Amino acid sequence: MDRRSFFKRAGVAAAGAAGATTLAAPAIAQSLPSVTWRLASAFPKSLDNLYGTAELFCKLVSEATDGNFTIQPFAAGEIVPGGAAPLDAVSTGTVEMAHTASYYSWGKDPTFALATGVPFGLNARMQNSWLFQGGGNDLLNAFYAKHGLFALPGGNTGVQMGGWFRKEINALSDMEGLKFRIAGLAGAVLERVGVVPQQIAAADIYPALEKGTIDATEFVGPYDDLRLGFIKVAPYYYYPAFWEAGSSLHFMFQLEKYNELTPAYKSVVEAASRTANANMLERYDAANPDAIRTLVADGTILRPFSKEILEASFEAANAVYADLTAKNADFKGVYDSMADYRAKAYLWFQIAEYNFDTFMMVQQRAGKL
Amino acid sequence: MDRRSFFKRAGVAAAGAAGATTLAAPAIAQSLPSVTWRLASAFPKSLDNLYGTAELFCKLVSEATDGNFTIQPFAAGEIVPGGAAPLDAVSTGTVEMAHTASYYSWGKDPTFALATGVPFGLNARMQNSWLFQGGGNDLLNAFYAKHGLFALPGGNTGVQMGGWFRKEINALSDMEGLKFRIAGLAGAVLERVGVVPQQIAAADIYPALEKGTIDATEFVGPYDDLRLGFIKVAPYYYYPAFWEAGSSLHFMFQLEKYNELTPAYKSVVEAASRTANANMLERYDAANPDAIRTLVADGTILRPFSKEILEASFEAANAVYADLTAKNADFKGVYDSMADYRAKAYLWFQIAEYNFDTFMMVQQRAGKL
Repeated sequence: MDRRSFFKRAGVAAAGAAGATTLAAPAIAQSLPSVTWRLASAFPKSLDNLYGTAELFCKLVSEATDGNFTIQPFAAGEIVPGGAAPLDAVSTGTVEMAHTASYYSWGKDPTFALATGVPFGLNARMQNSWLFQGGGNDLLNAFYAKHGLFALPGGNTGVQMGGWFRKEINALSDMEGLKFRIAGLAGAVLERVGVVPQQIAAADIYPALEKGTIDATEFVGPYDDLRLGFIKVAPYYYYPAFWEAGSSLHFMFQLEKYNELTPAYKSVVEAASRTANANMLERYDAANPDAIRTLVADGTILRPFSKEILEASFEAANAVYADLTAKNADFKGVYDSMADYRAKAYLWFQIAEYNFDTFMMVQQRAGKL
Repeated sequence: MDRRSFFKRAGVAAAGAAGATTLAAPAIAQSLPSVTWRLASAFPKSLDNLYGTAELFCKLVSEATDGNFTIQPFAAGEIVPGGAAPLDAVSTGTVEMAHTASYYSWGKDPTFALATGVPFGLNARMQNSWLFQGGGNDLLNAFYAKHGLFALPGGNTGVQMGGWFRKEINALSDMEGLKFRIAGLAGAVLERVGVVPQQIAAADIYPALEKGTIDATEFVGPYDDLRLGFIKVAPYYYYPAFWEAGSSLHFMFQLEKYNELTPAYKSVVEAASRTANANMLERYDAANPDAIRTLVADGTILRPFSKEILEASFEAANAVYADLTAKNADFKGVYDSMADYRAKAYLWFQIAEYNFDTFMMVQQRAGKL
């Protein structure tokens, strides 16, 4: 809230106001008004890096304001379920804010998916650069404002794994009729190469894979996937998840509540979200190397998607984008900005970054690191 | 400072203290004590992303504390020169903090170089993951404490470019006697493959290259290099800077001053430094793509270092590390931690990340992005 609305709410007449009978609050007290919010996370506590990112955000906001601005995080299911529910709970005013993947709401408008990331989109570094420096956040917030929302990036997974498959898939024809648990825009893209997307609640994936009700499932990456035990029923672990190259989560606020914050509290919220945003990727990058080694030691069979599958999926994605940009101006505005950045970023990154990484990977394979 | 020391310094008796004759400060006023610091940057204002990272940090700290904690940034030359001087100015108490590359002080102890990054070290994502989640920051701060310092990462450049060369270098023998403006540990490594490292102040590089007093110079990357105009006198632009794969800058504090901050102010400083740390890399990733295209349009000739040169330099670096770890326990502790993380990270990153990026780079080259 701004200072004027703070005083109005607090019932304290401002100094100099006509008929003021109480003393104005001392100047310093304006800075730390008491604010209490609730945050609905789209994630269960068991996914500790995803849920933990919201916990970290809340902790940082409280610390920086000496406990005057407190936000209590609730895991999926505590106030509302996961999926699109936390964002809906912000829209309806049930909670002041959520921590979620915007793409869960893509059914309302596919523009929601662009905030998180879309098939053949940006890797994590590019995603952050585009969002924060390339105009992405501003374009997205112009869209969110129409829904009474304001969003700040709140974590990134890096390139995810393509998921767990009961059988090897090599030719494009192996995708035909494949019952793959995958949601959202990625499902719509894969449908064009023959996949039959399945939507199944997390708890039901394992039995469905075991019985063969579904042929494959995608989830996140080694660290989160390790605890799900899919290896026993679907040992082929494909890469990369070309539909989740640098997926961003977001802190999603009621726009009106966010605008009521003092400038200092807005600054605290932004810095806390920046910290949480970086922290999640760092944690995955620190934990995934050990997790992938454990998975392979336990019998996971790593397989890259074939060139044929990647190329057909890339064409399918472009066909979906052609459709969506033709009929949705919000989608087109954000997508074009992302795609422009992507084209030039993937030129630059193949020079110094790619050559250094390639050399180091060769040394790793030669046992020299 | 903790609350007790704040009251002690402020001369205010705590409530309940024997003989207290003054009223304790109201609870809320404890939270935002007035603090005024100075920051010495190692960079000139003309390098606007490097210097701007310190400006951003100072702005965020001020905003989050409603102007009660102010830090004034000074560019290189305003209080002290660049290079190692800002860190020295923190050590001697001339300023409360600096924004600098720790490796400028490697001559005092090579452990200072590990904070920034060393030849064949970590790329930017790995560097942040190791520093924040892999124990790097804690190990470094145990070392810095011996020098009365405390450090927080404050920006990353990504993989830098290898610099500007008057002539092509192909074989390892082309490095023999090459007068290359390069400093620090990287110079010590390249010396082992025949290079004659040169230390020249920034303003003198251009005339030295023009006259042939030196054969080559390294600087940062396209965005910063563009404005220096080396292309006219040394058109071969080599990559990658295998000695600067993910160089971190640091905010460097007098340990005692940092410890005097309230918990809330420490939290504000940490979140501001996290934001500045991410922001610098995002800005480079947003600006370098345009800059490299401008440089190439202007006649820059891009060249990769040959496999022979990379491999010989990698061996030279390992020989230097073998020497340093044998005789310096601080260096060994930090280096081993970095190298352990590097080995497993370069296994993991060659799976999903590398395959996705490679596919996208192939599309970029085919004109499909």
